[in-house]
Amino acid sequence: MSLILALDFGGTKLSAAVLERGQKRWRALERAPSRPHATAEDDLSLCSHLAAEVLAGARPAAVGVSFGGPVEAVRGVVRLSDHVLGWEDYPLKDHLGDHFGAGVSVDNDANTAALGEFTYGAGRGCDSLLYVTVSTGVGGGWVLGGRVWRGHDGMAGEIGHTLADANGPRCYCGKRGCVERLASGPYLAAHARELLGTQPEAGEKLRALVGGDVEAVTAKHVAETAARGDALAREVLERAAWALGVGLGNAANLMNPERVVLGGGVTKSGERYWRVVREVARATARSQIRLEIVPAALEDDAPLWGAVALAEGLLAPSPAS
Amino acid sequence: MSLILALDFGGTKLSAAVLERGQKRWRALERAPSRPHATAEDDLSLCSHLAAEVLAGARPAAVGVSFGGPVEAVRGVVRLSDHVLGWEDYPLKDHLGDHFGAGVSVDNDANTAALGEFTYGAGRGCDSLLYVTVSTGVGGGWVLGGRVWRGHDGMAGEIGHTLADANGPRCYCGKRGCVERLASGPYLAAHARELLGTQPEAGEKLRALVGGDVEAVTAKHVAETAARGDALAREVLERAAWALGVGLGNAANLMNPERVVLGGGVTKSGERYWRVVREVARATARSQIRLEIVPAALEDDAPLWGAVALAEGLLAPSPAS
Repeated sequence: MSLILALDFGGTKLSAAVLERGQKRWRALERAPSRPHATAEDDLSLCSHLAAEVLAGARPAAVGVSFGGPVEAVRGVVRLSDHVLGWEDYPLKDHLGDHFGAGVSVDNDANTAALGEFTYGAGRGCDSLLYVTVSTGVGGGWVLGGRVWRGHDGMAGEIGHTLADANGPRCYCGKRGCVERLASGPYLAAHARELLGTQPEAGEKLRALVGGDVEAVTAKHVAETAARGDALAREVLERAAWALGVGLGNAANLMNPERVVLGGGVTKSGERYWRVVREVARATARSQIRLEIVPAALEDDAPLWGAVALAEGLLAPSPAS
Repeated sequence: MSLILALDFGGTKLSAAVLERGQKRWRALERAPSRPHATAEDDLSLCSHLAAEVLAGARPAAVGVSFGGPVEAVRGVVRLSDHVLGWEDYPLKDHLGDHFGAGVSVDNDANTAALGEFTYGAGRGCDSLLYVTVSTGVGGGWVLGGRVWRGHDGMAGEIGHTLADANGPRCYCGKRGCVERLASGPYLAAHARELLGTQPEAGEKLRALVGGDVEAVTAKHVAETAARGDALAREVLERAAWALGVGLGNAANLMNPERVVLGGGVTKSGERYWRVVREVARATARSQIRLEIVPAALEDDAPLWGAVALAEGLLAPSPAS
């Protein structure tokens, strides 16, 4: 019996899971929050602890790893983490290979999530897929012809920093009107707070939901009150949906993937949000392009399932297509 | 000795060329303009005549074909031609296969040009490439991991209809501010004519070049006088370069190709044009992306060389990467 070990080094939490090769259910899964001010060493030690628990003395045949930050996938070297110190140029693949005595494959979480949805989730049966997650940021990953497409510098999938509105507000990256600047949760919430500040009569339901504390408004509050008819919240949410739709339509024109899978907290903003995203993407893409935009199926577990797919790839390289 | 026959059904002209397998020089090449009001049958007959000339009685080992319009590449069926009647759903691959008694591979001209530059031109030595041609329209083709990426509906590479400016002028496709609407030759010239009409004092050199006949202004006139310091011509050319740069930067963020190859008449607009294209693309793409934008090397012959590469692929399928 072949065991696959899947590890997910997220920004704020770590997960380890084990399954028998070919199965679709975890045999064991453990999660733990990353300690505040943790270092890479802390995370590795916690991860090794979680892995020992789920392995229960068994040895994995292969290990797949999702990492929440830029990774040189081929060499399995972490470039850095935005959340945790000490990851700079860390040879994660070699370290884990020594530790577990098994083959290890590592990729960043956008790519593993894309691969997870492709292999086990909303992308099953497709030949190509664009996965986009909309939460704190807007990130993406490609699977083309059954393989993750990482790009020459490992930077493919940066849909969040494509332009939706060249005259839009300034993004932290320096440009104006990036998809992320208009569609991500924090920026969307900031837009709502700004409008609440300048339009004292508007956004009644949104104000009520936060007890008048405008600074407490989050993207979730916006989605909730938009669904209940708050005009200001709807305006904010629709602009975010518009920007995402433009980004997806542009991506469809460039790559024409078979399916687009959307995950992340902001995409749980209700029917109206989805309608605008789909309509704008449809209008932006050429009419000959079939455009299927569907919700992610695996959500938070997508990177872990992608790690399984990475490990499977080590055991049985798929035949040349 | 293996002979490869390459055919190019362009919008206004037909070409046939023959080379010995593995060689980099044509053994024979013939071109002829497509007759005005020609039908598909006329083009096929002319092409068969040109092919007979270059083959000089020999039989080709394989035939590669570039077609100036949408093609179902796998089946080798032409969907339609914008220029020539009678091509709707035409089984070009089967027809030519019967005619020449050899394997035939067909693709549209954006893809064959991309493949041509990749294999024999400015993309040699790359793993991935975006080819963009800027002339009457703005079209593109991808080579990823050594293969043409066509997309699920054969529509990949439509960079001309990605958005550069959501508030820009209306494109014939119905959207506003498409890259093609801002960067193509005819639209660029129309922009110049418009400014000449509304600014009677401006564009002195441009007016002089066309002898005061504003309606005669073409993209070439704009480029020529921009190079000679005409402020109006520069403004027009720089907006076109800006739009192309945005499109390329967005494409780089999404796919991170190793190289971008630019061809087509408008890209011969001089140093200033290239500087703006490169600067805007660089500013639009994330800083971690190395971005190499180079001129096409094969120009009008790129589709023909791509046809050679298609035919080579029939003879010796490249080993799985």
